[in-house]
Amino acid sequence: MAHIRIQKLRKQLVSQKIDAYLSVRDEDIRYLTGFPAHESWLLVGLEKAAFFTDPRYSQEARQHLKGVAVRECRGSLREELARYMTRRSLKTIGFDERHFSVFSLKQLKSTLPAGTRLKAVNDAVLRLRLIKDREEISGIKESLAFNMKAYQYLKTMIHPGMRERDVFARLLEFISKNHIRFAFDPIIASGPNSAFPHARITDRRIERKDLLLIDMGMEKNGYKSDLTRIFLFARISPSVEKVYKAVAEAQQAALGMIRDGIAVAQVDQAARKSLKKKGLDKQFIHSLGHGLGLDIHEPPRLSVKSSEVLKSGMVVTVEPGVYLKGRFGIRIEDMVLVKDQGCEVLSQSLISSHPFLLK
Amino acid sequence: MAHIRIQKLRKQLVSQKIDAYLSVRDEDIRYLTGFPAHESWLLVGLEKAAFFTDPRYSQEARQHLKGVAVRECRGSLREELARYMTRRSLKTIGFDERHFSVFSLKQLKSTLPAGTRLKAVNDAVLRLRLIKDREEISGIKESLAFNMKAYQYLKTMIHPGMRERDVFARLLEFISKNHIRFAFDPIIASGPNSAFPHARITDRRIERKDLLLIDMGMEKNGYKSDLTRIFLFARISPSVEKVYKAVAEAQQAALGMIRDGIAVAQVDQAARKSLKKKGLDKQFIHSLGHGLGLDIHEPPRLSVKSSEVLKSGMVVTVEPGVYLKGRFGIRIEDMVLVKDQGCEVLSQSLISSHPFLLK
Repeated sequence: MAHIRIQKLRKQLVSQKIDAYLSVRDEDIRYLTGFPAHESWLLVGLEKAAFFTDPRYSQEARQHLKGVAVRECRGSLREELARYMTRRSLKTIGFDERHFSVFSLKQLKSTLPAGTRLKAVNDAVLRLRLIKDREEISGIKESLAFNMKAYQYLKTMIHPGMRERDVFARLLEFISKNHIRFAFDPIIASGPNSAFPHARITDRRIERKDLLLIDMGMEKNGYKSDLTRIFLFARISPSVEKVYKAVAEAQQAALGMIRDGIAVAQVDQAARKSLKKKGLDKQFIHSLGHGLGLDIHEPPRLSVKSSEVLKSGMVVTVEPGVYLKGRFGIRIEDMVLVKDQGCEVLSQSLISSHPFLLK
Repeated sequence: MAHIRIQKLRKQLVSQKIDAYLSVRDEDIRYLTGFPAHESWLLVGLEKAAFFTDPRYSQEARQHLKGVAVRECRGSLREELARYMTRRSLKTIGFDERHFSVFSLKQLKSTLPAGTRLKAVNDAVLRLRLIKDREEISGIKESLAFNMKAYQYLKTMIHPGMRERDVFARLLEFISKNHIRFAFDPIIASGPNSAFPHARITDRRIERKDLLLIDMGMEKNGYKSDLTRIFLFARISPSVEKVYKAVAEAQQAALGMIRDGIAVAQVDQAARKSLKKKGLDKQFIHSLGHGLGLDIHEPPRLSVKSSEVLKSGMVVTVEPGVYLKGRFGIRIEDMVLVKDQGCEVLSQSLISSHPFLLK
């Protein structure tokens, strides 16, 4: 699969009239080669590709990389790259303006052979990564399976009187037993803390009357998953039920729109319109969702401000939320795979019209 | 303390002839304000400072930030910044070329009021952060105390037959119980895996005859610590002992050089010279150490390639290593505070002339 991806990138070299593309982002290099690179560079030419790394990683890289030459750099990666380019007479190099700081681009320019042309070719790899191939979808599903398993575990494990941090400690045990990692710091927000969309974990004890919001992502073999669920100990109160229902309906409204060819702004708008009917749209203070894969946040962003269009093979979160300051917040987040005629809710087995009831 | 740090930054505004400095790095903003910022910007003017954040973080920011106005941005941070600058007639803004991608600087330029001058003022905050103040040293020591406690725990916990990943699982429990985080993915490398300076954790079972290298960093309240130790189950073999002693001596040679005013290159060279006497300098394939604090890697880099000079109040690691491919690797890493007349080894209580012996 890695070889096919590099071939797809090579087509862009031709159309962009560049001799080679310089990839410096870990996730992009992992996508192109399958190797979990770190502080390394990949130069993809029309026929050959070279991986530049320092002596700490060169042994492992040689063991894993096939069809890519490993250049061990005792000095800087830049200097070794310059030598490589001179030897192969590479003149025009594509790079991504998002992946170079103003400083590092200056440094690079000052090191490369005189006459080298650096051409901005933005999102060259990200564009390929937008549409997930079979291997990627399987990677995402594997990560998601662990995430769903973790939510099932939470249902049996959380009890009133635990502190938010105790729940976190138990989750750490879960991830270590399952040989996975968090894709990001989980949000474990009880009672009024749930009204902060990005609450930090505190020592607050979770009371029987509280609702509990958990937003959690897993990573397995580089692929990320992202889900949010609401938990309750007691029967739902009318005020929470009203908001929960409104958010669940907003999510369903959005899910009903998702298919190949639809504008992301329309999908976001559908959720917002649904909430507006309940007078809750002003409390929905973030965008509806985001793509994910090797990064936890990838394009497309499901936002009214975006002009992107969904395509079959994209994987995105759908996560409307309503936040009532000082009281509580509700967010429901699922992951979907965009299809020609609709979408597959990858976390379908966890979908429920009610919050999870704990004992 | 935060206020004093902002005042120090303001002195640079005057000398650099800028109206305000735009800080966009989480760690820099945390240093200046004490607030663990995320995806937010801080603009420090000569008299006022403003924090730009989106609705997810604005509540929390208002609770924590004193003497800094919080601007909740419903659109982009850039747009709100542009409005703020227009209102206050700020014309020349300093920024760090390392913290803006080529892309984001272009975006910023296109949004700010016409006539705005963006001036590169690199390392403005990092320069302040080089010398740790009392509060920072206490933060680093607290983080280090947990790290040392973790090594003591490892001494009692590891037994032959455990897999590297089992050791990791137990460490996860330790960090969750102690309400700390890893500063980076720990290295737990047994037998020949230890010959990879940045080995990944595997399912390899640790045998009685193996040596085990553990490189581990903790984070507490943003501050990082970083230590490496070698563990053995059995009596040390002559070949391991020879290398261990050489590395320990190289570390002592370096520690003996550290004081205010010495060039980092000299300190690195001292370790290298010491290893050369044993014919092991070619196997020391990385630099001697690095500064740390809010970042796990900060200036100064203890490297022969650097022209930096150590100053009293800097905190650095000293970590010589020797890597014998296919056999084993030895690295010993401690943390020191540079003083006027020498240095304080912050991890002194963990210093030993032998590897840790396990049962």
